[in-house]
Amino acid sequence: MFEPEDVWSDVQRIRSEAPLIHNITNYVVMNTTANALLALGASPVMAHAIEEVEAMVGLARALVINIGTLSGPWIAAMLKAASAAKRRGIPVVLDPVGAGATRYRTETALRILTDTPPAIVRGNASEIRALYYAESETKGVDSRHDAAAAAEAARGLSKKCGCVVSVSGAVDLIFNDDSVVQVANGHPMMPRVTGLGCTASALTGAFAAVNPSAFEAAAHAMAVMGIAGEIAAGKSPGPASFQMHFLDALYGLQEEDIRKRLSMERA
Amino acid sequence: MFEPEDVWSDVQRIRSEAPLIHNITNYVVMNTTANALLALGASPVMAHAIEEVEAMVGLARALVINIGTLSGPWIAAMLKAASAAKRRGIPVVLDPVGAGATRYRTETALRILTDTPPAIVRGNASEIRALYYAESETKGVDSRHDAAAAAEAARGLSKKCGCVVSVSGAVDLIFNDDSVVQVANGHPMMPRVTGLGCTASALTGAFAAVNPSAFEAAAHAMAVMGIAGEIAAGKSPGPASFQMHFLDALYGLQEEDIRKRLSMERA
Amino acid sequence: MFEPEDVWSDVQRIRSEAPLIHNITNYVVMNTTANALLALGASPVMAHAIEEVEAMVGLARALVINIGTLSGPWIAAMLKAASAAKRRGIPVVLDPVGAGATRYRTETALRILTDTPPAIVRGNASEIRALYYAESETKGVDSRHDAAAAAEAARGLSKKCGCVVSVSGAVDLIFNDDSVVQVANGHPMMPRVTGLGCTASALTGAFAAVNPSAFEAAAHAMAVMGIAGEIAAGKSPGPASFQMHFLDALYGLQEEDIRKRLSMERA
Repeated sequence: MFEPEDVWSDVQRIRSEAPLIHNITNYVVMNTTANALLALGASPVMAHAIEEVEAMVGLARALVINIGTLSGPWIAAMLKAASAAKRRGIPVVLDPVGAGATRYRTETALRILTDTPPAIVRGNASEIRALYYAESETKGVDSRHDAAAAAEAARGLSKKCGCVVSVSGAVDLIFNDDSVVQVANGHPMMPRVTGLGCTASALTGAFAAVNPSAFEAAAHAMAVMGIAGEIAAGKSPGPASFQMHFLDALYGLQEEDIRKRLSMERA
Repeated sequence: MFEPEDVWSDVQRIRSEAPLIHNITNYVVMNTTANALLALGASPVMAHAIEEVEAMVGLARALVINIGTLSGPWIAAMLKAASAAKRRGIPVVLDPVGAGATRYRTETALRILTDTPPAIVRGNASEIRALYYAESETKGVDSRHDAAAAAEAARGLSKKCGCVVSVSGAVDLIFNDDSVVQVANGHPMMPRVTGLGCTASALTGAFAAVNPSAFEAAAHAMAVMGIAGEIAAGKSPGPASFQMHFLDALYGLQEEDIRKRLSMERA
Repeated sequence: MFEPEDVWSDVQRIRSEAPLIHNITNYVVMNTTANALLALGASPVMAHAIEEVEAMVGLARALVINIGTLSGPWIAAMLKAASAAKRRGIPVVLDPVGAGATRYRTETALRILTDTPPAIVRGNASEIRALYYAESETKGVDSRHDAAAAAEAARGLSKKCGCVVSVSGAVDLIFNDDSVVQVANGHPMMPRVTGLGCTASALTGAFAAVNPSAFEAAAHAMAVMGIAGEIAAGKSPGPASFQMHFLDALYGLQEEDIRKRLSMERA
């Protein structure tokens, strides 16, 4: 568990099986998250109409719900899709983008958490704190906190929902009840690219599709995100070239990249 | 017909006339397809409100309908726009993204096909088979089949609807009743970039705007897609740099590129 | 005013304060405008649900409204958000994308102008003319005119609405009642990238968040757009590499770049 060969094994399974990942996500990141899933080897589909989400969930191996640009019809579709995913037994990843910024987002995320607890909640520290403490302190959709500042909230949320909670930051922390894994891969340029957190959630869905342990899947996804980010950083004078090299790095990722760079351990 | 000078002639007309192409397309590809149309020399507009689609069709020289992220209000707008395009006599291109994956998509595509037969249907083999056989075998929005596997369906669909059917794959096949043209340009990286099929449909709209033969327009568009892809591939270690170089290649396309690379023939 | 040190001072404030900019914008440009705001140093958020726009405006330091892909629920949210921004006293930037192309767009832009006059209107010459003369001559969302062709309309609109009017073109013209500033920075590749006008509006919001003079903010934003474009152009064989280098240039912008390149003067 949490060794380079385990991360690589998941990557290989994603590449060979090309699992279909159903995304109900925000308008800002649809293109980049679809490209990240394709670059990694998964098969993305975006579908949000209440008329077809159940059918699409029926074809998918994971469902990723991201509340970044909410509206009423999308919330209804998210709830229906999450419910269908539960019935089918496929993993659901919830990205509570901007929870804490507005009551609308906090309440929507909490409603999904309560009605159909996901396998994995993946957010930044502000969002995770907002879900646990019902705080309203998020500044837009960025985080004001290091992942460590959400440790108590993340552990509490994991226990309360019976789900894995993955908190991104300079060091990512992944909680599963009383267990914690930390991932120190990544690069400071990453928060300067819009939607890389959403990409982390989408990739978490791909790992959850091939690895029955949600805890491992969540950690492996953050490790691969961070390693691809490190590879990209060396070639990128700014965030737009970084986004491009990041996607190319996901596509070209080798076992040796993981062996040399992986910084993941139980905390 | 189907000679390098014919393809080049269309490109020159697009560049000099900058035809307005009205797109009602999916959220995932709006940015990249608008950029592809601009790079080629056309003038893209995206508009989906039922209140304005008729007016926008009234300014456009082609309408491209893409069902990649459907919902009720968008379907109503698509039908109204297609009907207005028919009345005005401008070509309509239909991209039945994900037809076969869900009944909602298959039925929407079939309804547009029946109510207002487009000039050109452009899809992958799974989608074309779904429309002709009413199969439900698509895996998400990717294709499980080579274009050749849809030959019978595409020919049948072309005859039934009286439209050109353009099937993308390693070798693209374009059907017009009993006539077939094949285009062997392209590169294996292309399916790893999200929405390049949608880009093919958008460019097909631009060619249809300047070439009164829908058959030629559909084939020329696939040839230019494939040639730009070949130019991009040599510079691109992964799909994100490929997308960038592909758009730059459309912008910089020269007659000599077409003369040297074109692989298009009647089958 | 309008000196290199003034532009640089705004850039430094944006970078140190990271003002939250609330965007209600079109689907085509959400990703690229969010990335432009982040690259410059601001903090973007996209939110369009009528249930949360007031709350989000309550956190923001500027509101950018862009009508590029309108529909009914979005118009309602735009009006509500603009009204909330007025009450809070934060600047509103209106980008009337495609005004003049359809009555729906012209009327929506005029309604926002009348109900809640923005601090700054930023558009191309066709759009500004459409708002002032109620013309219907726009060709899609591109401009048929140089900025100069909209001079009378822009001056008139500025006086009528009591707002700054920023008209983009080869030379940008920014009007504030009887005062005019012209910005000659930029590059001919810029109109070949989709949504760079929308990016100009988003950045105008960031400058308006830190500079209490809407006139200066509008001019400084166009200067920084143009300078970043000039830096990008030297490295870019086509529009897609241009978009990437443009965002990287915003991120890496130095005081010296502004000193050496700024071409801004009162006309």
